[in-house]
Amino acid sequence: MIVRLIRVHVRPDAVEAFEEATRLNHQGSIAEPGVLRFDVLRSPSDPGQYVLYEVYATHEATVAHKETAHYTEWKSTVEAMMAAPRESEVLEVVAPVDERAWRVT
Amino acid sequence: MIVRLIRVHVRPDAVEAFEEATRLNHQGSIAEPGVLRFDVLRSPSDPGQYVLYEVYATHEATVAHKETAHYTEWKSTVEAMMAAPRESEVLEVVAPVDERAWRVT
Repeated sequence: MIVRLIRVHVRPDAVEAFEEATRLNHQGSIAEPGVLRFDVLRSPSDPGQYVLYEVYATHEATVAHKETAHYTEWKSTVEAMMAAPRESEVLEVVAPVDERAWRVT
Repeated sequence: MIVRLIRVHVRPDAVEAFEEATRLNHQGSIAEPGVLRFDVLRSPSDPGQYVLYEVYATHEATVAHKETAHYTEWKSTVEAMMAAPRESEVLEVVAPVDERAWRVT
């Protein structure tokens, strides 16, 4: 499994539109066979700060994700909403090791 | 749901012992009724850097977790392994909204 932790900083006036676009991306993403999780989180104290917690079965799945229509649509839609560039961090899994404990059902 | 993202920086000589202690804490934690996820992640490029991704059903569950034997045992075991103080961030959920899509099974 490969985990990507993405931090997104959205302009205050774009928060609602960002959440709508990101819910669509979430729905498309969890339907991909190689996407195990695609959690969308926000700061309760700092409006506009979001974290995406993306878990992929393989490296190939991370590449396939970026070629999907829902990802490219999301990326172009939210581009103008950013207050700062996205920050991305890659992590590997210590636990749980069973892939079945990761997949959104 | 309440998400806690914890960053832990472990001394290089303590990495193996930290992972062993944290696997035990993971196993105990996912058996708690109010703990939906307790993912343990590490940086592939920066040894000693860990992220815990903890998802709780309620605020009460976050309190109950800190009163468990596995948590107090973990906390005292890893205390001397830290290279820096733990950093904790609280997040709320945008998606998925169904609790069943979160629980480790």
